[in-house]
Amino acid sequence: MSAAYRLNRLFDPHSKRCIDVAVDHGFFGEPSFLAGIEDMPAVVQTLVRAGPDAIQLTAAQAPLLQSHPGREKPALVLRADVANVYGPEPPSAPFSLVVDDAIGHAVRLDAACVCVNIFDIPGMDGLRRQCLANVSALRTACDRAGMPLMVEPLVMKPGRGGYEVDGDADRIVALVRQATELGADLVKADPTDDLSAYRRVVLAARVPVLVRGGGRVSDDELLSRTRAVLEQGAAGIVYGRNVIQHPDPTGMVRALRAVVHGEPA
Amino acid sequence: MSAAYRLNRLFDPHSKRCIDVAVDHGFFGEPSFLAGIEDMPAVVQTLVRAGPDAIQLTAAQAPLLQSHPGREKPALVLRADVANVYGPEPPSAPFSLVVDDAIGHAVRLDAACVCVNIFDIPGMDGLRRQCLANVSALRTACDRAGMPLMVEPLVMKPGRGGYEVDGDADRIVALVRQATELGADLVKADPTDDLSAYRRVVLAARVPVLVRGGGRVSDDELLSRTRAVLEQGAAGIVYGRNVIQHPDPTGMVRALRAVVHGEPA
Amino acid sequence: MSAAYRLNRLFDPHSKRCIDVAVDHGFFGEPSFLAGIEDMPAVVQTLVRAGPDAIQLTAAQAPLLQSHPGREKPALVLRADVANVYGPEPPSAPFSLVVDDAIGHAVRLDAACVCVNIFDIPGMDGLRRQCLANVSALRTACDRAGMPLMVEPLVMKPGRGGYEVDGDADRIVALVRQATELGADLVKADPTDDLSAYRRVVLAARVPVLVRGGGRVSDDELLSRTRAVLEQGAAGIVYGRNVIQHPDPTGMVRALRAVVHGEPA
Amino acid sequence: MSAAYRLNRLFDPHSKRCIDVAVDHGFFGEPSFLAGIEDMPAVVQTLVRAGPDAIQLTAAQAPLLQSHPGREKPALVLRADVANVYGPEPPSAPFSLVVDDAIGHAVRLDAACVCVNIFDIPGMDGLRRQCLANVSALRTACDRAGMPLMVEPLVMKPGRGGYEVDGDADRIVALVRQATELGADLVKADPTDDLSAYRRVVLAARVPVLVRGGGRVSDDELLSRTRAVLEQGAAGIVYGRNVIQHPDPTGMVRALRAVVHGEPA
Amino acid sequence: MSAAYRLNRLFDPHSKRCIDVAVDHGFFGEPSFLAGIEDMPAVVQTLVRAGPDAIQLTAAQAPLLQSHPGREKPALVLRADVANVYGPEPPSAPFSLVVDDAIGHAVRLDAACVCVNIFDIPGMDGLRRQCLANVSALRTACDRAGMPLMVEPLVMKPGRGGYEVDGDADRIVALVRQATELGADLVKADPTDDLSAYRRVVLAARVPVLVRGGGRVSDDELLSRTRAVLEQGAAGIVYGRNVIQHPDPTGMVRALRAVVHGEPA
Repeated sequence: MSAAYRLNRLFDPHSKRCIDVAVDHGFFGEPSFLAGIEDMPAVVQTLVRAGPDAIQLTAAQAPLLQSHPGREKPALVLRADVANVYGPEPPSAPFSLVVDDAIGHAVRLDAACVCVNIFDIPGMDGLRRQCLANVSALRTACDRAGMPLMVEPLVMKPGRGGYEVDGDADRIVALVRQATELGADLVKADPTDDLSAYRRVVLAARVPVLVRGGGRVSDDELLSRTRAVLEQGAAGIVYGRNVIQHPDPTGMVRALRAVVHGEPA
Repeated sequence: MSAAYRLNRLFDPHSKRCIDVAVDHGFFGEPSFLAGIEDMPAVVQTLVRAGPDAIQLTAAQAPLLQSHPGREKPALVLRADVANVYGPEPPSAPFSLVVDDAIGHAVRLDAACVCVNIFDIPGMDGLRRQCLANVSALRTACDRAGMPLMVEPLVMKPGRGGYEVDGDADRIVALVRQATELGADLVKADPTDDLSAYRRVVLAARVPVLVRGGGRVSDDELLSRTRAVLEQGAAGIVYGRNVIQHPDPTGMVRALRAVVHGEPA
Repeated sequence: MSAAYRLNRLFDPHSKRCIDVAVDHGFFGEPSFLAGIEDMPAVVQTLVRAGPDAIQLTAAQAPLLQSHPGREKPALVLRADVANVYGPEPPSAPFSLVVDDAIGHAVRLDAACVCVNIFDIPGMDGLRRQCLANVSALRTACDRAGMPLMVEPLVMKPGRGGYEVDGDADRIVALVRQATELGADLVKADPTDDLSAYRRVVLAARVPVLVRGGGRVSDDELLSRTRAVLEQGAAGIVYGRNVIQHPDPTGMVRALRAVVHGEPA
Repeated sequence: MSAAYRLNRLFDPHSKRCIDVAVDHGFFGEPSFLAGIEDMPAVVQTLVRAGPDAIQLTAAQAPLLQSHPGREKPALVLRADVANVYGPEPPSAPFSLVVDDAIGHAVRLDAACVCVNIFDIPGMDGLRRQCLANVSALRTACDRAGMPLMVEPLVMKPGRGGYEVDGDADRIVALVRQATELGADLVKADPTDDLSAYRRVVLAARVPVLVRGGGRVSDDELLSRTRAVLEQGAAGIVYGRNVIQHPDPTGMVRALRAVVHGEPA
Repeated sequence: MSAAYRLNRLFDPHSKRCIDVAVDHGFFGEPSFLAGIEDMPAVVQTLVRAGPDAIQLTAAQAPLLQSHPGREKPALVLRADVANVYGPEPPSAPFSLVVDDAIGHAVRLDAACVCVNIFDIPGMDGLRRQCLANVSALRTACDRAGMPLMVEPLVMKPGRGGYEVDGDADRIVALVRQATELGADLVKADPTDDLSAYRRVVLAARVPVLVRGGGRVSDDELLSRTRAVLEQGAAGIVYGRNVIQHPDPTGMVRALRAVVHGEPA
């Protein structure tokens, strides 16, 4: 499958794993999401120097990355959709909207991958339907372009706002499985509360699984959690706030490279 | 009609009947549906060896079957739609969504048939309309590709969640008839509570009828029910959990081949 | 207008009138509608021998008629839409859905006409809008194919389920007029309670009007009502249950040919 | 295949054979072709009364037939292409041109079949290519409309103008076979010089073969030749000048019905 | 690449090789090509029983194969183009014409592969260009359908008519290489005069190479030549006249199965 050619740009050739730093939080229109990423040119400049395998951006911020010379810089993962479910209150009419001609943008921006959500939020059946339709439509568009599709299944607790993900392994496994049945080339999934259950996520996915980072935690917790899910079979990480809100993003990326790729720290 | 050419791959050339094993349960995102099919490569491998006439999968799992060499392996029946009606609670906004370019996927995956639902659930008029539109659109897409269309009419009890089908013969016959009037090439229908009424289902369908298996029952019950509906004119079976959750799927397929095809057990 | 060429196949060349027998009731998914038409191959066979001018069927049943040799057999009138308003309870979300590529089906099936509804049911404005959009879209599709469009305006009583039509002449005339304003080539309309008012229906239509039969009545009542509307200017009849549920459908068609075409009984 | 439905209008239901009278000679722009068909309304009127199974016309003359009431009149076979090879001198740039939207015309005119040529004229390779492309393109257009495709393979002698067909069985068989490989539903082929070789034409065609009439001959010769090819397996005739230039076209059609359909003369 | 799924139907699962019997000679309109294949239903019936891995046919003859029940019968290889270079005299205007919507036909007919020519005939540059354009257009159409593309490069001697292929290894290797550079999934190539040079053909192709049979030769010569090219790395054979003009086609297929698949003779 031709998606493989761009995936080769996403994964480290030696460890076969991927460190993706997500800096697409500004897309969601939430004031609280902007901490640490107010100055995007500076953020991207810092990250390019830190050298993760990929940086996740929206189409309009992507030139900040893609204008850098050379082919060894981080690959672009393009965020394809914008949702309204992260506010402090649950939305009255939840949506997850894929930008127009998302794969056209990805091709023109020379992205190595696109990323899209499936939300499992109790009581929001219409949102689920939107997400399934989004993934399904992106699947065929990606096929025509040889563009890898990363699906980010998000299991949330009922009746709350914000980023309150649910670490219930059964729910995560079932949603990841749905993402796979829809044709994800990559899955970006939350850690399970019981990290030893992450192997079930990996089994359900059948494609490489990158672990989401979630909210800020201590360096020790982050690194030990990272080690744990890699042991369960995860193929890498997609961390955002734990890198970009870190006082030393470069040092944190270096620490993650040591854990994920086995490089000397 | 050119659908006949692919139907030739679905039916046994001697008995003119079909044993289809459905392994598409993971598509629906229900944690409880994954029992026995957590490891899809292993499941499909086991089934290919067991040798039913067909295996029912979603597009993204289909390569597990289609990568097997030879043309004698089970044919692919492609699940075209995903619904949200199987949860423990009835959905607030029920849907049945056909994947984008379903027939394009079926063609590229060398499927021998696609399968789509019509739900008759009291109070869910909008869902019914979605299903009728789904079948009608697939009918013309199938015609353009010579792809057989299997319609799965599901009569459910009002106000409940889960897989609570209704065995009422009048309701089943009327829904099967609607499937036929919409152009089904094959019908996959639940057994009627009174098995002797299955002849009415067969008469209403006018096209081959494959019987659904439903939840786990004893081997004796399954095989005697199978015999009964075949006597009433059914053209075969589509069983899922009674095969894949069985301790000996290979043995169960062999037992079913004896009943359906008249092969030595 | 080229619709005239196919209309030539619909009307008797001598009487210039049409007897159409509708056998499309199975499309609506209502158990109670199947009485007398459970075995469609037998029903169509009987009707072809009885020799009305036309038989009304859905696309998937139409081959039962069109496979008969010769060009003197009854012409095909193709039912284009399926509604959910005939159940014992009014639907919560009423719909009338035209099948995908209806005129493409009509062309491929060599139909002489297609038939579509406009429902006037108090309180169901959304349904009315669907119907008007259906007729309007079919009008242009029919124009491109030279396919006559029969519109069936149905005036129903408020708040009831089932086939409870309203014989109020004012309502019928207004709805027939709307059908004509949308471009009907033919109108299929209910009898008015006061049969002498049927002339107003004919005047409103300006195109040939075929009278609906409605529920089962005695032979005498049916034939005398037929005579009455013909005297008021109707161009023929579309009868269903009064023919197909009749103990002697062939005799009934012969009796109707005597009344409508003036043939010796 | 749905072409069967329109073929049912072309063939006599009892004899399963077809008498088609071709009156499309005016299309070719040859002064000598107009004898007997100068007054098309009168010609078509006469033929409708004479009652062959079909009349072959161009799109613009077809309304003369299709305006007649009733469905028992002769079916319309629509000539789809115009060539320049019939003049007294061979053309410097031979062509065979299919009219724009030929199948659209056929559908709108309620035709039962379209007819197109393949010319095998030594030295005219470009013409052959045009014809093969014509048939191939009409094949898919016909499939989309359920329209039967009659192919008329014409084997001509080298270096001559006019209608100088070659009765060489080997050449006719090979060209008829090519027509069949391209998907003809019907073949209209010249008689072979040796009429007993016509069975080879029928075998090569695999679809019904209608025999061309060619230039005027005596009634005896025409009828005995007709009998001979029917005995060899032909499914009917397409005669033009021998009917329309005959002093008594009605009588000639009656005589042909006796031979072809076995009706009392 | 999804072409792999249909290739799985073309190759024997054990030997990983393919025996394809070509019966598409009637397409070219040459009287001399019909020997042994005059009666196509009988020919295909015989071949289905003989059991090669595939039978090569045109779209209109393909139903003779595809109407057979079961999925173990030979797979369909669809001939996509018709040329005029096989006559006794070289054509003045050579052509190779791909039928309209070739891949649409292939999909509807459930073909496992399509086959198209590239002619290298000295002096016929325009023909070469047509062929390269044909292959290139089919390549993208095949990609959209997951349909394997077999390219048949034919190296011919200058200035002659008929099937006079040139066994010059340098010319064959160069033309096979061009086929591969255009994206052939399979190559069907003539044997080289020096059979030991066939390894160069296999190396140039990089995809499986099936050897053409050419004109009738003795059984011994055919079988020993077959062994020789298999030893050089060929993946199978496409034989036509040496099977269908053989007095015992079934015995010949059995003998070829012994050589190609290593089955007991």
